[in-house]
Amino acid sequence: MIVPGNTLGILGGGQLGRMIAMAAAQLGLRTHIYAPEANSPAFDVSAEYTVASYEDEEALARFARSVDVITYEFENVPGATAAILGAHAPLAPNARALAVTQDRLEEKNFIAKLGIPTAPYAAVATEAELAEAVDRIGRPAVLKTRRFGYDGKGQAMIRPDSDLGAAFKAVGEAASILEGFVPFERELSVVAARTAAGDFAAYDLCANEHRDHILDVTRVPAGVSDATGKRAVMIARAIADALDYVGVLAVELFLVQTEEGESLVVNEIAPRVHNSGHWTLGGARTSQFEQHVRAVCGWPLGSPARLGRVEMHNLIGEEANTWERILAEPDAQLHLYGKAQARAGRKMGHVTRVFPEAP
Amino acid sequence: MIVPGNTLGILGGGQLGRMIAMAAAQLGLRTHIYAPEANSPAFDVSAEYTVASYEDEEALARFARSVDVITYEFENVPGATAAILGAHAPLAPNARALAVTQDRLEEKNFIAKLGIPTAPYAAVATEAELAEAVDRIGRPAVLKTRRFGYDGKGQAMIRPDSDLGAAFKAVGEAASILEGFVPFERELSVVAARTAAGDFAAYDLCANEHRDHILDVTRVPAGVSDATGKRAVMIARAIADALDYVGVLAVELFLVQTEEGESLVVNEIAPRVHNSGHWTLGGARTSQFEQHVRAVCGWPLGSPARLGRVEMHNLIGEEANTWERILAEPDAQLHLYGKAQARAGRKMGHVTRVFPEAP
Repeated sequence: MIVPGNTLGILGGGQLGRMIAMAAAQLGLRTHIYAPEANSPAFDVSAEYTVASYEDEEALARFARSVDVITYEFENVPGATAAILGAHAPLAPNARALAVTQDRLEEKNFIAKLGIPTAPYAAVATEAELAEAVDRIGRPAVLKTRRFGYDGKGQAMIRPDSDLGAAFKAVGEAASILEGFVPFERELSVVAARTAAGDFAAYDLCANEHRDHILDVTRVPAGVSDATGKRAVMIARAIADALDYVGVLAVELFLVQTEEGESLVVNEIAPRVHNSGHWTLGGARTSQFEQHVRAVCGWPLGSPARLGRVEMHNLIGEEANTWERILAEPDAQLHLYGKAQARAGRKMGHVTRVFPEAP
Repeated sequence: MIVPGNTLGILGGGQLGRMIAMAAAQLGLRTHIYAPEANSPAFDVSAEYTVASYEDEEALARFARSVDVITYEFENVPGATAAILGAHAPLAPNARALAVTQDRLEEKNFIAKLGIPTAPYAAVATEAELAEAVDRIGRPAVLKTRRFGYDGKGQAMIRPDSDLGAAFKAVGEAASILEGFVPFERELSVVAARTAAGDFAAYDLCANEHRDHILDVTRVPAGVSDATGKRAVMIARAIADALDYVGVLAVELFLVQTEEGESLVVNEIAPRVHNSGHWTLGGARTSQFEQHVRAVCGWPLGSPARLGRVEMHNLIGEEANTWERILAEPDAQLHLYGKAQARAGRKMGHVTRVFPEAP
């Protein structure tokens, strides 16, 4: 059993690892970050860190032996890496969660098998398969590489006039998946936690707005019916149970208005704390980062109760330069990630605003 | 001007330094801890640390040159140490706040000069002076060393039957102060922040219960009249202004019931974040640790608004072993300090419970 004073190993040194490390420290755990990049933001708040590649078997084994339990901040942990780590220390979420979510085709198949709606999709390995898939699914559609895509990278839109050869080249002619267009009203996500004992706790459903394929704003409540809110939590629970999931996960959803009312389509599963859950830090009784640590350690889950109406804005690139104005706002909570350079498109921080609940 | 990405130097590696460091990290600052003890709890959440004594002039100068601004977690920073640091980087709170508060006689004189009530007191340098002082102030009274006392150490009670020679020996025959007994109803404290520009923000007055001279419970609101709450804030502001204070300070007060109603007597000033302000972490819009960092950096102060009725319990020694039960409570927020050994009397963590405000 993990107890305070033990060490949590975290794969990945970005802002998610950083905020997990701070939550772990609050609960009396030491942390050890493993990341390939020198000067990773999470190093500044951890007791120990290792700079090495995810393929460095010796460094991975040394890291895993030095910690009591291991988690990660990103879903693209290679399977071989997970296997090496898992040989020395418990890994949570488990290797299955990684295998399913790091391949968009596996993920869609997994969701569909649970009877949960997804966008129409087809596997695409060649330009000929792309043409067939487009015939079947129709335009517009999105071609995405099966693996290693995020924030809109490795994607090509298939519009009425798009050239399929060019689209296939745009994704590097990699094994891909074509996803049909979902005429959604709104992008939603549900962030939830599950323990090894099967305990489960979900945060309120939230509404997300993206800009340039990067999350811009999250609002809670999401402005949907209670039934939709409950349905989202049921979906998250079914997914978590089927994966025997341990930790926080996020399920990204599309809200579709049909003649019968609101319906939900799963877009993607993130087997980790998630940007759309940042509002819970200061906006809920227990932050997603603390909740993740509790789950990973096998400790009781905390209350996911919301503290008011919450808005979370990402501070992308030079938006972070507004920090001083944000500090002067009485309702704003500023979080900066300690990144040296405010490059365009880079997540530099976020701001959470908690308001009294609308009557 | 201090900006995110700069480094905050913190003198002292205990739980206060640790929680200041975490608040600084949230705002994008790097931290560098300076402490004499290896394995200090704050090291685990800081980017850099130096293990050296407070008398090591070379290490102090190297530390001060490596940071952009310096603060501390304890009031007993030697004057010579403050002078060395201040030559290389801004020190906040300033050296005057240290000089006044690390000498109980200076402190009492300073408070009295502001026209703020204190317990009756007298300087005691010899056993003969002690006898005179006891004649004047009466019994019971407390003999305290002028310098370097905390949590009841360096103190001797003078009861009706106490031997004065033994009492003077008990405080090491050091330069001391005799304090008359204040027949108080309750122990209170006010935690507040002031910036170099003179901005000021106070948290709600809180009520404190001690056990074995160590803070056990803090409750907010304190259950006193509005007038007393306002008077406490005025006292804190007068003290902060007179010291040209920068940062968070705590003023410990006695509540006395007189025929005219409630009155306040200042017990002690702590020029730092304070145990009785731990409730603000999760119980107020801005924690005292973030507020301290904001003030020290010259940034706008945050809102001190309270989020409900709050109780903070210290976890002393083996009380920390109840961590798992606390984690299972929906209203409880657990904070553990990462200390290896749960020695008797050692502050291992605290738990904050936030309840809906009483109607």
